[in-house]
Amino acid sequence: MQIVMIQDKIIPAEQVDPVHYDRGIFFGDGVYEVMRSYNGKLFALEEHLERFANSLSAVAISGIDIVQIRARVLKAFETAGIANAKIYFHVTRGSAPRDRGWDDSLEPNFFLNLSEITDNTANRNNGISVSTHPDWRWKRCDIKALNLLANVLAANDAARKGCGEAILVDEAGLITEGAGSAFFAIRGKILQTAPLTANILPSITREFTLKAARNVGLEVDEKSLTVEQATGADELLIASTTQDIVPVVKFDEKVIGDGEPGKYARLLNREFSTFTA
Amino acid sequence: MQIVMIQDKIIPAEQVDPVHYDRGIFFGDGVYEVMRSYNGKLFALEEHLERFANSLSAVAISGIDIVQIRARVLKAFETAGIANAKIYFHVTRGSAPRDRGWDDSLEPNFFLNLSEITDNTANRNNGISVSTHPDWRWKRCDIKALNLLANVLAANDAARKGCGEAILVDEAGLITEGAGSAFFAIRGKILQTAPLTANILPSITREFTLKAARNVGLEVDEKSLTVEQATGADELLIASTTQDIVPVVKFDEKVIGDGEPGKYARLLNREFSTFTA
Repeated sequence: MQIVMIQDKIIPAEQVDPVHYDRGIFFGDGVYEVMRSYNGKLFALEEHLERFANSLSAVAISGIDIVQIRARVLKAFETAGIANAKIYFHVTRGSAPRDRGWDDSLEPNFFLNLSEITDNTANRNNGISVSTHPDWRWKRCDIKALNLLANVLAANDAARKGCGEAILVDEAGLITEGAGSAFFAIRGKILQTAPLTANILPSITREFTLKAARNVGLEVDEKSLTVEQATGADELLIASTTQDIVPVVKFDEKVIGDGEPGKYARLLNREFSTFTA
Repeated sequence: MQIVMIQDKIIPAEQVDPVHYDRGIFFGDGVYEVMRSYNGKLFALEEHLERFANSLSAVAISGIDIVQIRARVLKAFETAGIANAKIYFHVTRGSAPRDRGWDDSLEPNFFLNLSEITDNTANRNNGISVSTHPDWRWKRCDIKALNLLANVLAANDAARKGCGEAILVDEAGLITEGAGSAFFAIRGKILQTAPLTANILPSITREFTLKAARNVGLEVDEKSLTVEQATGADELLIASTTQDIVPVVKFDEKVIGDGEPGKYARLLNREFSTFTA
């Protein structure tokens, strides 16, 4: 006899909803995406689907048709009728008794949550403070996987310090990225950000930020920054799907520039908004 | 309106079972234990509960009474009536709409699965082959957390190569441990294994293996090994809760010793069995 206990209730294993056996919960064995719409229009759907397909392939989850995922996203978006929506979805390898090994016949589990996006105009206008945290994440952050405890712990450490984001620093003292965002420094006419390696999420907003940077006359330098280089920059920014481009005005208690959002933060957000219109 | 989609079905958010919002699945935001019984007797219950308490504390999951966890494990074990049981349990921070930040009032989710342990006498008698894989895990492997995708991918890479375990190698070329086991090398009268750092799970079976080693006259050297040092050893072993001590007879296709389980593998298993009797 195999038994399951949920909170303090014992349940025969065969009566347990398979969702309790999701490999997503046992192992974080799944991948996800977060995308959004602006004024009733989905933004960068194809880019998100392409990255999602890459993530699935990197963890060898097969049997997922991206055409079907696209159809589900569109159906959810149309059904909800939310103009500025945040759409989260994940696919896990499926539900099965806990065992590291998997059977290729497992049916993947799909979950999507669509809600109104939180307005962050205040952060974009006023800037945020950030604090650093050791980058404890796994070594394949190029895969958007459900192993996010390091991000959660870092983000909460920042929140406890009154900061809006944690900036992750690797063992060599280099900034990788934010716990949930890409990170950029501007010095003179150069916008600098870490290059895309296995330690960095290939952020879609990062790509649009680089495009915006070039459009406003900045040169892009994809090179990792030290904390010292960051605090000495003219402007600092983070960028993510749900927040667009947000100026960082304080970094580990050090005031950046004159402590106000800089010129390029404004220019980049203006340029970025032309992509999403 | 907030909506959820599970597979291809749209469901109003308020009708969704909270298990779908488990932070365990969104983030791997939880910790777990695996323990076992031998012939109707739970082994090392207090050690597992102590480690579990440490894991909970390390990820700041509060509101869990270890006395209650102990009672649940005992209740499940008595109810199942399985003499040689494998007991898996986890606690996640709770269920809530997906947001990295958490509310301290969240009620943690407890899940336990108890089943008959798989007999691995054949592996203990014949030994197993192992293969190496880069250690992609996060940097806090001293916490037994639900972020195990790196372990899953490594273990499956090994399985595809016909091996019973993946041995993880860090960026410096040093062996950390197995994807689901501690790793040991014996050379002469010395048993060597990686020291307990943030990269290594404080394995309970490792502790008992070290105790057994001292009892059979081996000297213990807690120092990381290179792959070359491992393949040059007289004997190699892995050890885990569900497998006890298993000799490794082939490492990345290289035969270890004479390709048969060695003298110390037998002696150590015999000594280990006195702890579990």
